[in-house]
Amino acid sequence: MEHALRLAQRGLGNVWPNPAVGCVLVRDGRIVGRGWTQPGGRPHAERVALDQAGEAARGATAYVTLEPCAHHGATPPCADALVDAGVARVVTALTDPDARTAGQGHAKLRAAGIDVTEGVCADRAAQLQRGFLKRVTKGMPLVTLKLATSLDGRIATASGESQWITSETARRHVHLLRLRHDAIMVGGGTARADRPSLNVRGYGDVRQPVRVVVSDRPVTELPPESPLHGPIWQVSGDLQSGLAGLAGRGLTRILCEGGGALAAQLLAEGLVDDMVLYSAGIVLGADARPSVDVLRVARLADAPRFDLVRSFAIGPDLCQVWSRRA
Amino acid sequence: MEHALRLAQRGLGNVWPNPAVGCVLVRDGRIVGRGWTQPGGRPHAERVALDQAGEAARGATAYVTLEPCAHHGATPPCADALVDAGVARVVTALTDPDARTAGQGHAKLRAAGIDVTEGVCADRAAQLQRGFLKRVTKGMPLVTLKLATSLDGRIATASGESQWITSETARRHVHLLRLRHDAIMVGGGTARADRPSLNVRGYGDVRQPVRVVVSDRPVTELPPESPLHGPIWQVSGDLQSGLAGLAGRGLTRILCEGGGALAAQLLAEGLVDDMVLYSAGIVLGADARPSVDVLRVARLADAPRFDLVRSFAIGPDLCQVWSRRA
Repeated sequence: MEHALRLAQRGLGNVWPNPAVGCVLVRDGRIVGRGWTQPGGRPHAERVALDQAGEAARGATAYVTLEPCAHHGATPPCADALVDAGVARVVTALTDPDARTAGQGHAKLRAAGIDVTEGVCADRAAQLQRGFLKRVTKGMPLVTLKLATSLDGRIATASGESQWITSETARRHVHLLRLRHDAIMVGGGTARADRPSLNVRGYGDVRQPVRVVVSDRPVTELPPESPLHGPIWQVSGDLQSGLAGLAGRGLTRILCEGGGALAAQLLAEGLVDDMVLYSAGIVLGADARPSVDVLRVARLADAPRFDLVRSFAIGPDLCQVWSRRA
Repeated sequence: MEHALRLAQRGLGNVWPNPAVGCVLVRDGRIVGRGWTQPGGRPHAERVALDQAGEAARGATAYVTLEPCAHHGATPPCADALVDAGVARVVTALTDPDARTAGQGHAKLRAAGIDVTEGVCADRAAQLQRGFLKRVTKGMPLVTLKLATSLDGRIATASGESQWITSETARRHVHLLRLRHDAIMVGGGTARADRPSLNVRGYGDVRQPVRVVVSDRPVTELPPESPLHGPIWQVSGDLQSGLAGLAGRGLTRILCEGGGALAAQLLAEGLVDDMVLYSAGIVLGADARPSVDVLRVARLADAPRFDLVRSFAIGPDLCQVWSRRA
């Protein structure tokens, strides 16, 4: 299952609105097939692994990070495919909360006489699938807020110079972060002032993330959609509704890259799930530009709280990952 | 030598104006004496270790983190003591830059027929002794700037609420930091507004650090000197000269605990050697109080730069240690 989870991770950011699933087929102690959800969401992980295994799938055990689907969509149900392939046992991590499956995948397998074990590595699988699960169960996308700041929390000098506070190594890591998200979101001010590329570079020929601009007026400064730049979607008005709308259009994981006003708005409304903070060993002072604008926190007890997930050096900088306190 | 360095560390903050030295005596593969500079700076590490070893010191190897002293001060020279005890070999990490020793300790030992090896673990010893070395060679103390901030670099809400941004675990760690420094320094505004205790609590009966207040007018709000509170020394006027004056009075390691104005002044003048940053998983926004006041950094290239030494979780918070880029 751990191997299947690692395979599943390859799909993150690439498969929306589908879940990023991993599947490993094992027979007689040997791996005979491996699969993960392919770009765009199809084929599914099980289909890929079964095709790879061919006849070797007969009698095998399938480790799948999510309950195999049971409904006829653009592809036939994976539960049926596992049955048809003669798999003897299926081990899953999570039940699919999608109403079209929701236990029916497991039921179908059991009805066909397959031995089914559920809930293996469920916590890790749920962590990996947070975006998909949040979209299906709450109608909202997972939001990661990225900040690249000085040690005193500044993102640019007073005059606006921000290139570059963090190192090239850290910036390359940001592209990995982008790769793992369905969309990159910025405020209108940042879009107009910085004309950011908001694409993934340095990771080959990948599905480019959607570019979401939060602004009440048109933003014309960004490069047009192309193989190098994802589509531009605009969000205006109420932010919560805007994000719900993005989930409705299929987005499961959104990376917000600024600026300070949008960061403050997201934090104030409790819409940030994760914070990824790149800290550079530089101090800019109170006249420099803040990473998060005015929040009007009256008492410390009212402030948004996060739990440390991990921190690690990235080149000369420090990367910190914090997750919203439940 | 590694053991001797660990012993030496126990003296940091307790032995000024003396260096914090560690000494281990080994005979026939067994440790026969261990010593470190005692509170107030005397007795020296070698004396303690020799007294512990007694007759067993004869023929032993002494590992000492700093060249043994050669001059008659309040105590007889340690070089003589090692000779008198019949030590066969002396291994040291650093030459004492104090003009009264400066190689004469090593020379005395060699003249007495003792085998002397120098420079073992020199880098680590120099790191440990930075405060002492800086005072002797540059007439300035080592300055550590401590900041306890939110993820966006704030030290209090707009209304001034700051108790507590960081956890009790982190605050206990600050007392360890205080213990390892000769003095705690704050600005006059912080002294008047917060009436901080500026002492070491929770580490038993220790030598309390000097309380340094940087202010041009008298500060009467702090508790008077007592067994629980170190003496109050005031610094006014030019900060660089003020710190040189503190070094002149014997201080080797100073911990600055705020506020933002003093932090900015120290950073702007290049007087901060180390930064210890406690980050709490909380966001306070741009209307909250900044950790570092106005610095007037015109270009990123002009900003004070630091290198990451280490970072570690401390309770729910993250502690980061940064050292000024050479």
